Amino acid sequence: MNVTVGRRTRHYRTVAFDVRKNAVRLIDQRLLPHRFQIVAARNFQETARAIGEMTVRGAGAIGATAAYGLAQGVRAFRGRDLEIFSRRVDSIYQTLQAARPTAVDPVNAMNEVRSRMIQGRTVAEQQELALAAAQEFADDDVRHCEAIGRYGGPLIQGGMRILTHCNAGWLAFVDVGTATAPLYAAQAEGRKFRVFCDETRPRSQGATLTAWELAQQGIAHEVIADNAAGYLMQRGEIDLVIVGSDRTLGRTGEVTNKIGTYTKAVLAERHNIPFYVAIPLSTIDWTLFSGRDVPIEERDESEVLGAWGAVARPGFRGSEPRCGRRVYVRVANPSSRARNPGFDVTPADLITGIITPAGIFKPKDLWANRCKLGCRERGTNLRLRGEET
Amino acid sequence: MNVTVGRRTRHYRTVAFDVRKNAVRLIDQRLLPHRFQIVAARNFQETARAIGEMTVRGAGAIGATAAYGLAQGVRAFRGRDLEIFSRRVDSIYQTLQAARPTAVDPVNAMNEVRSRMIQGRTVAEQQELALAAAQEFADDDVRHCEAIGRYGGPLIQGGMRILTHCNAGWLAFVDVGTATAPLYAAQAEGRKFRVFCDETRPRSQGATLTAWELAQQGIAHEVIADNAAGYLMQRGEIDLVIVGSDRTLGRTGEVTNKIGTYTKAVLAERHNIPFYVAIPLSTIDWTLFSGRDVPIEERDESEVLGAWGAVARPGFRGSEPRCGRRVYVRVANPSSRARNPGFDVTPADLITGIITPAGIFKPKDLWANRCKLGCRERGTNLRLRGEET
Repeated sequence: MNVTVGRRTRHYRTVAFDVRKNAVRLIDQRLLPHRFQIVAARNFQETARAIGEMTVRGAGAIGATAAYGLAQGVRAFRGRDLEIFSRRVDSIYQTLQAARPTAVDPVNAMNEVRSRMIQGRTVAEQQELALAAAQEFADDDVRHCEAIGRYGGPLIQGGMRILTHCNAGWLAFVDVGTATAPLYAAQAEGRKFRVFCDETRPRSQGATLTAWELAQQGIAHEVIADNAAGYLMQRGEIDLVIVGSDRTLGRTGEVTNKIGTYTKAVLAERHNIPFYVAIPLSTIDWTLFSGRDVPIEERDESEVLGAWGAVARPGFRGSEPRCGRRVYVRVANPSSRARNPGFDVTPADLITGIITPAGIFKPKDLWANRCKLGCRERGTNLRLRGEET
Repeated sequence: MNVTVGRRTRHYRTVAFDVRKNAVRLIDQRLLPHRFQIVAARNFQETARAIGEMTVRGAGAIGATAAYGLAQGVRAFRGRDLEIFSRRVDSIYQTLQAARPTAVDPVNAMNEVRSRMIQGRTVAEQQELALAAAQEFADDDVRHCEAIGRYGGPLIQGGMRILTHCNAGWLAFVDVGTATAPLYAAQAEGRKFRVFCDETRPRSQGATLTAWELAQQGIAHEVIADNAAGYLMQRGEIDLVIVGSDRTLGRTGEVTNKIGTYTKAVLAERHNIPFYVAIPLSTIDWTLFSGRDVPIEERDESEVLGAWGAVARPGFRGSEPRCGRRVYVRVANPSSRARNPGFDVTPADLITGIITPAGIFKPKDLWANRCKLGCRERGTNLRLRGEET
């Protein structure tokens, strides 16, 4: 999407590939929202490090990064011996996989690249096919998000006030995003609306990443404390909720997403506000029979006990990030501990519709439409545990 | 309640009076939870400044502070002329009132002191009566909180897991607190239980003040993100919710309290978890006919856009506050704005019971019991707008 640095607005993808320099170009998400910087990973080891250190995060984005990383490593190989080459490929694959061992997106992405690649008969052919497959994987990610926008965009009418939770935006994918795709589509058609970004404690992805995205795209928005959504709904100030999903159960329509999503769904139901979930097909889990079987990661308690931010004056306002260095501050009582579940499961009956690249479905209808939703080909294409975004 | 500094445990009140030095002694709440320090306001001007700068905060606590401040100023008067004396009293009263002009607790407290005082026939008599009245006001505050504990304590059975929101603890009163009173009462009777402290963004009073209080009292507790309560309820990990209230409508049973309270009440109802509100009589509003008429303060957006804390290592753990200086960090995207409603209104049908110093009542039964609940004598004893705690 567009990013404005100084007076210059340019289109960026979260993940891109520089063919000439054989480098993976990434938006350094650890610096956002206080600084926008592109970093180049010049070899697959650097790419693996970028995944591991969360320079890049988000399901689609780390998938594409791993795909590019594999192509990058493969292209750097010098020689013609297919056997040595293929041992090298295994080693690159493993290095990239080990960067985020619990994430399945890099694995799925690299499997796609590798299965295409081995159709080549020479090292040179395989190198070429690997790059083509990685490019295609990234382009597909964008196309799927655009399709979500085409289906979800019409839900947003002029004047609406929309609540989002966490970040399922373009920073989590190669471009466009999932929960944000309908917003960008409606904006492209000239409709005006406002967005409330849930802060999304403890990692504050709503206040940092989603707010940054919307600001860059010129979409009117305000950050709210996670506590405030109920109040705004009571006052009739929210018309629609759209969130993303880390894992949606194809058999039951239950949605696993960032902690707090369930709470927003309960509130939306009470106030008769439509609650939509936007998802890429790769996050549908066709295997589990109940949301109770989804393992919920307990993350480090330091996230709850404190916050990351840039030292600033409290009254600080304005469009420029005139902030000091980013630090961690301990907010909570020093001797207290915390619980920090990363995700929760929202039951199907609280969800109005699931926006996919193949259309909008009632949660209970996912299973009946499983062929259309890629069940056969991607049956196990799901993340084994919640992927921190 | 008890506070341990180093190896020494002592009982403190939030607000106390040093008769010999004619000084108001306060716990400096701006330094908590990172530092415990008692400050002495040596004259009524210093006491007014302590109220204004929020060295002391919370309904009962600022009421008692103003009562002591008035007695303090009155006692410092040198002379026998009752007319000059009474002009001096007016000026002290106004200085103390101006410290937090929207708060009604200091006004109510000072009115009680003044009406007692003027029964004296000489300056010396009035000075003595002022001190006695202020002491009594503070002691009454403690007695009322203890009564809440007597009624609310039996709700807490051994092994229970209790959710609290914000801080209606002893730091907000002279001692014991309201929402915390049942906890301390149950603990005194030897029952073991666990407390989840909602962080309570944006001002994080749960993570800072409530967690500090519980830690000092040795009550097992954990801080959670405001987003996590729904998840814990889904998993059956919460048995009871107790919160405080800034204003409870005597005619309807609706409860105004810190933003996010309504959300917790909605979640509790869905999961059939008892939801109790503990209140002092002074916060019952007998005049309003609907929660829609309660003015909700929009506070400064910097609270939502950032956080206050002590610079620390993220992995930091332990019982000692080994933290750096307290700073404000900007968390949110620098160019984004925020909405920051400070309070919300919870409808009566979501509330299991209201714990008062006069017993536990169904919200709808407050009006029928208004004589018992002090309606006649305190009909307008309510805060005109939410009192930030």
